Amino acid sequence: MSDRTRFVLDEKQMPTRWYNINPDLPAPMAPPLHPATDEPIGPDALSPLFAMELIKQEVSMERYIEIPEEVQHVYRTYRPAPLNRARQLEKDLGLPEGVKIFFKYEGVSPAGSHKPNTAIPQAFYNKQEGIKRISTETGAGQWGSALSIACALYDMECVVYMVGISYRQKPYRRILMETYGAEVIASPSTRTNAGRHVLDLNADSLGSLGIAISEAVEDAAMRDDTHYCLGSVLNHVCLHQTIIGEEAIMQMEMAQAEPDVVIACVGGGSNFAGLAFPYYRRKLDGKSNARLVAVEPKACPTLTAGEYRYDLGDEAGMTPKMMMYTLGHDFVPAGIHAGGLRYHGDSPLVSLLRKEDAIEAVAVHQNACFEAAVQFARTEGILPAPESSHAIRAAIDEALEAREAGEDRTILFGLSGHGHFDLAAYEAYNAGKLEDYDFAAGSMCEGA
Amino acid sequence: MSDRTRFVLDEKQMPTRWYNINPDLPAPMAPPLHPATDEPIGPDALSPLFAMELIKQEVSMERYIEIPEEVQHVYRTYRPAPLNRARQLEKDLGLPEGVKIFFKYEGVSPAGSHKPNTAIPQAFYNKQEGIKRISTETGAGQWGSALSIACALYDMECVVYMVGISYRQKPYRRILMETYGAEVIASPSTRTNAGRHVLDLNADSLGSLGIAISEAVEDAAMRDDTHYCLGSVLNHVCLHQTIIGEEAIMQMEMAQAEPDVVIACVGGGSNFAGLAFPYYRRKLDGKSNARLVAVEPKACPTLTAGEYRYDLGDEAGMTPKMMMYTLGHDFVPAGIHAGGLRYHGDSPLVSLLRKEDAIEAVAVHQNACFEAAVQFARTEGILPAPESSHAIRAAIDEALEAREAGEDRTILFGLSGHGHFDLAAYEAYNAGKLEDYDFAAGSMCEGA
Repeated sequence: MSDRTRFVLDEKQMPTRWYNINPDLPAPMAPPLHPATDEPIGPDALSPLFAMELIKQEVSMERYIEIPEEVQHVYRTYRPAPLNRARQLEKDLGLPEGVKIFFKYEGVSPAGSHKPNTAIPQAFYNKQEGIKRISTETGAGQWGSALSIACALYDMECVVYMVGISYRQKPYRRILMETYGAEVIASPSTRTNAGRHVLDLNADSLGSLGIAISEAVEDAAMRDDTHYCLGSVLNHVCLHQTIIGEEAIMQMEMAQAEPDVVIACVGGGSNFAGLAFPYYRRKLDGKSNARLVAVEPKACPTLTAGEYRYDLGDEAGMTPKMMMYTLGHDFVPAGIHAGGLRYHGDSPLVSLLRKEDAIEAVAVHQNACFEAAVQFARTEGILPAPESSHAIRAAIDEALEAREAGEDRTILFGLSGHGHFDLAAYEAYNAGKLEDYDFAAGSMCEGA
Repeated sequence: MSDRTRFVLDEKQMPTRWYNINPDLPAPMAPPLHPATDEPIGPDALSPLFAMELIKQEVSMERYIEIPEEVQHVYRTYRPAPLNRARQLEKDLGLPEGVKIFFKYEGVSPAGSHKPNTAIPQAFYNKQEGIKRISTETGAGQWGSALSIACALYDMECVVYMVGISYRQKPYRRILMETYGAEVIASPSTRTNAGRHVLDLNADSLGSLGIAISEAVEDAAMRDDTHYCLGSVLNHVCLHQTIIGEEAIMQMEMAQAEPDVVIACVGGGSNFAGLAFPYYRRKLDGKSNARLVAVEPKACPTLTAGEYRYDLGDEAGMTPKMMMYTLGHDFVPAGIHAGGLRYHGDSPLVSLLRKEDAIEAVAVHQNACFEAAVQFARTEGILPAPESSHAIRAAIDEALEAREAGEDRTILFGLSGHGHFDLAAYEAYNAGKLEDYDFAAGSMCEGA
């Protein structure tokens, strides 16, 4: 066991290929279905919206996919990302020598989160195929920010349909995207049929992610120079994030430590996939026995309380039906502050692994997560994003459980981003004003 | 010349000592004077407010000072910090092969700036000497945030007197400090005689940095368990920041490049000192011919338009008089967005070097800085702090000048922090609403 705190990779050690879990799955993937006909759809159905290279990656059975040199070049502006041992948190928790906590930190990216790992290749492949403009939707703004940055770096236009209520309440995220040159449009807008239809019914609509998706997809479908990009859920998005876990494996080897448990938060699933999928392969290869734990909010507990079935990816029915854990495509989660985890469904890949018991899932309350986040900030210095705090909560719980049981345990968790854009959430927590919501109980929790 | 983009140091390569420029100065330092008597004051006069180890560092003639293991341990949670070649910016500027731009990035710290480099040792030495509580002032909040983090990491109390108008207008910085456990007080307050005096005269006072300093100093003087900490200007603060330049020297060696010019923004001077002082030594050692360039706002052009004379460090006359470039301790700079550069004086060390022509200084307008910042963000991905954008402006100007002259030039600048807390400033710039102020012209500039 190394006595060091920080495990830094040289630029030359940055992984040059992504890990594609498709050929290693414990069971075959169910095909996506057309939302209207319920017939299986092939890659061609996606070609008006997505770059061909991304569609190929979506269904590829190659175990590894080379990262293009032009993408590596941009990755190198912020990667390899650090992996630290949380020695001060360990001390604060009073952990014995045998219980150790490591974390992989993605907050050093220019967006402050893991999202650029996929925004950059998505922009690149589209640029390579002659696309000049990319449309997308964003809720709280993490994904829209990352795509805005990627488009700026490849000198492409970017149009972001931002959920109307966020557009008004979170001006800083809008300004960030605009500073990178993106056009940010409050959704519903008069730009699209979908938007106009909503506004006709309710001129004061606050919007929703479902409406914003519909507008962004329609925008891309209307124009030959425009494609659509998605920030999570799909296979190729999970693929691009695996650089996180590939780096982590090397860094844990530097630390001369092998994790007994690998933990990451899950919303659409790409952050979890990024850290956990390479460890899944490592288990197949007989080099790891790590448990892989996905952490989700009790207010939106897709993997722990959802059904495994075909469902739409959006509210409006513009997207294919996918086989996944879902709370129902019309489910509207409570307004918890971890906006990135408020998704009714989940990545089909992550869902399949959960169904096949290849991974575990736990659900936690947001007050418990903020408590963990503040403890982490005050010991390790970094203020975590509310999404990432779910992983911290689970990591601390694992550590305390091991301490109580008198067992050794090496814990690795993913810290997917910093919380510098989330201070209103911390303000509410500091003031004791955060409420916990329990999907299972169907109501707000008392004193949870 | 290396073909690489990112120059990463291993944790074991992190410098273990700070560089103390005192013994290498081109002329002796003038002693600080008592504000009332104008008599030279010795280290003892500072002991009610500062840790003895910091006072010793203030006057030390040792060329190197060891970084305590406990400080190194905390530095390692975010250091060594990256140094990148700005290849995409170079391309966007159309630079020839011989003109190269590198930058050292401090925005990866938990505060998002270079300030923790000194907040951490200041908190540590105070803790070691039995101090339980630290007081300070903050304007925009960068320094208060860094000290709040450092105090949390060493389990000390922190009280921050925050300029009243910032307290109201910048709630996110306040929330950040409170989340780390600091007590944040709007200044003027009823806590101190200084604050009550101001409020008696004007119950609606918006406060000023000078008043906040007076309150923080009085708070520390009143209590045996409390010391005061300062975030810039003083010798020991400059000393702690030299870890920036010590790392940069190693990283530029990795890049097989020697800078012809080293550029950093200057407010109180510690950021500039951090990057430039180690290069000053390298010049003395005959290993470098780099020009060292300090960049300041035209709205507060201390080094380029100030007088070199004894002046007070604060408005209220609580601090010693120091020999420095100054615009007068009662000078109130225009409300530019680079709040960290709005200081009437400058570090006595940096001032002496300027007086002796060992460094250069230039002044730039804020609109030109934001223009450079946006170009940098859209090419290199990182959104810079408004303060740091001054260094980018000067670096781009150096590069363009070299291109026009047909000369080779290797440029290194300090990117002291990210701009994720400064989006209101970018909003104003994006909307064309930023005004340029010229101290020399005594008025706002038309179309500058």
